[in-house]
Amino acid sequence: MTEIETIIGSIQPLDEQIQAKAIQRLDQLIKPKGSLGTLEKIAIQLAGIQGTSRPKIYKKCTIVMASDNGIVEEKVASAPQVVTLSQTLSILNGLAGINALSKQAGADVKVVDVGIAKEIHHSSLISRKIRKGTSNMCKGPAMSYEEAQQGIKVGMDMVKSVIEEGYNVIGTGEMGIGNTSTSSAMIISFTGCSVEKAVGKGAGLTEDGYEHKKKVISQVLKVNQPNRNDPIDVLSKVGGFDIAGLVGCYLGAAYYRVPIVMDGVISATAALTAYYLNPLVKEYIIPSHDSVEPGYTLICQIMGLQPMLHMNMRLGEGTGCPLAFHLIESACAMINDMATFEEVALNSDFLIEF
Amino acid sequence: MTEIETIIGSIQPLDEQIQAKAIQRLDQLIKPKGSLGTLEKIAIQLAGIQGTSRPKIYKKCTIVMASDNGIVEEKVASAPQVVTLSQTLSILNGLAGINALSKQAGADVKVVDVGIAKEIHHSSLISRKIRKGTSNMCKGPAMSYEEAQQGIKVGMDMVKSVIEEGYNVIGTGEMGIGNTSTSSAMIISFTGCSVEKAVGKGAGLTEDGYEHKKKVISQVLKVNQPNRNDPIDVLSKVGGFDIAGLVGCYLGAAYYRVPIVMDGVISATAALTAYYLNPLVKEYIIPSHDSVEPGYTLICQIMGLQPMLHMNMRLGEGTGCPLAFHLIESACAMINDMATFEEVALNSDFLIEF
Repeated sequence: MTEIETIIGSIQPLDEQIQAKAIQRLDQLIKPKGSLGTLEKIAIQLAGIQGTSRPKIYKKCTIVMASDNGIVEEKVASAPQVVTLSQTLSILNGLAGINALSKQAGADVKVVDVGIAKEIHHSSLISRKIRKGTSNMCKGPAMSYEEAQQGIKVGMDMVKSVIEEGYNVIGTGEMGIGNTSTSSAMIISFTGCSVEKAVGKGAGLTEDGYEHKKKVISQVLKVNQPNRNDPIDVLSKVGGFDIAGLVGCYLGAAYYRVPIVMDGVISATAALTAYYLNPLVKEYIIPSHDSVEPGYTLICQIMGLQPMLHMNMRLGEGTGCPLAFHLIESACAMINDMATFEEVALNSDFLIEF
Repeated sequence: MTEIETIIGSIQPLDEQIQAKAIQRLDQLIKPKGSLGTLEKIAIQLAGIQGTSRPKIYKKCTIVMASDNGIVEEKVASAPQVVTLSQTLSILNGLAGINALSKQAGADVKVVDVGIAKEIHHSSLISRKIRKGTSNMCKGPAMSYEEAQQGIKVGMDMVKSVIEEGYNVIGTGEMGIGNTSTSSAMIISFTGCSVEKAVGKGAGLTEDGYEHKKKVISQVLKVNQPNRNDPIDVLSKVGGFDIAGLVGCYLGAAYYRVPIVMDGVISATAALTAYYLNPLVKEYIIPSHDSVEPGYTLICQIMGLQPMLHMNMRLGEGTGCPLAFHLIESACAMINDMATFEEVALNSDFLIEF
């Protein structure tokens, strides 16, 4: 058994006993039962992950997997391939959207080169380049089965490493021109849905560009015939290195027991892949924002996840994660800092009941 | 003209020139245009309110209007009336949901007694009691026209006072058993919608309790016949002191030019009332979370507002506001701290374009 298989096979469910204790505490807090909705749900989830009915967030980071996709040769993206490199450098230099939002949230950003098409050097970059971009999946598989496994391993290693640094909540980001195309192709492979249901306009395609993108994705699926019963086959044939890395992050988060925040459609595609490798992964996922990309909704339906933020965001980079970190920390504040009915009764001359 | 009428008549629209400058800046930032969705929308709104294309949030607070409603005699609420008092004390003592979430967000809570049914003393309480609870609106108007104006004045004064303290974003909270009933009655009065479309289960009614509540609301409307063309008539006949106070907050925020965060259905009902008094109020409102109460959706449709947070919350107290503060501050971080394409190009040997 490979290390990846061992990790996938060793993921445990959340601690139900601790979750019951967390629910008990929530129901004693001075509010109508369940009235804080998703905040309560998150608190219960964190309790089950952390093994304590008083969960806390200490250190937060978003892992940004950056890589290039050979499919951009087919003109499926509104931006040229070099943007993967330049935008990755901007993230490394603290200039991008994910940086501004992370800084505001007191969170860090970890950037991994898992397959950018060009040479890239930066003191903050984590270099785990598998290859200089995937192959054009319109002509054959994007990568080999082994490369897909290698990408997953990169993500698992990253999670292990950030946990060692003290992070206990992880966001999932990506930078890779063409990665809404790989995501769409993977979603169709897994679900058998129509091209219309999974392909969107990415960061900003025109109508013509959108029609073309749908044709290319259909061609990609015809050429590769991915086997939906083997998630790594799907990933290798029609995925990308960034998605592979994120699949590893989701699996690693579940294995090492930390909550992992899902961002937009690319991050969600990685989540779905990890979920098909082991459905227990889902218990560790906290969705952040609703994506504009159509495939996103389908993925949420399959996994039974409801995004908290409806903000028409479609930037990527993991920008939904720092926003979600605030809500996760709010859930912790709620379960830890609100008083119970009993505590209040001790200090007053009447009993309150809701 | 009364002071209230002067304020209502003096509200100005947002500064469109500054907003155009903000949009220009947003479009120069290193992201596809518009890709940060609602964060961009908020940044533009704040720019137009604050009169600068680099808006900032300095100090945040939620104003909690607490009062009692005579309608609770009709058993429309799942909690007894004394909970208004006890829960207001809990908020004053920093023990409630709004406190835990506000503390986590670095925000303050200001509690105003605008009509609690009992005597209440606390060093942090702002005492502006109009009367010890409204009358039972099942038998006649909840309050007089003058009392409604008085309540509005309380809210306007509060906004003026917190601005003087340096707060530049305000949340709207409430504590008042029975106030989903007053809200529903007001929504039906304004919109003419069916009872089913505006009445919900509040903090936790049973099915029987829900059926009863709908009958009572119908009776309230029959008895009072509020005039939808006079928002203050509606407010006085079938509203509450808490809602009156919040109406004043919305009007004050628009008049004194600070963004105001809308919470759940009670806060939204106050927003709608203020909007009917002067539609420009809408430009100053930032909705926070989607409420479970059915009338909320209707109000959002009328005003064209989209809540950012979908979290199944129904606690009230203003608990959506501290969550929204994070997103508002994120919008500021975005427009202030992200780099422009030009700034990035100066430091690299290639031009990036999206």
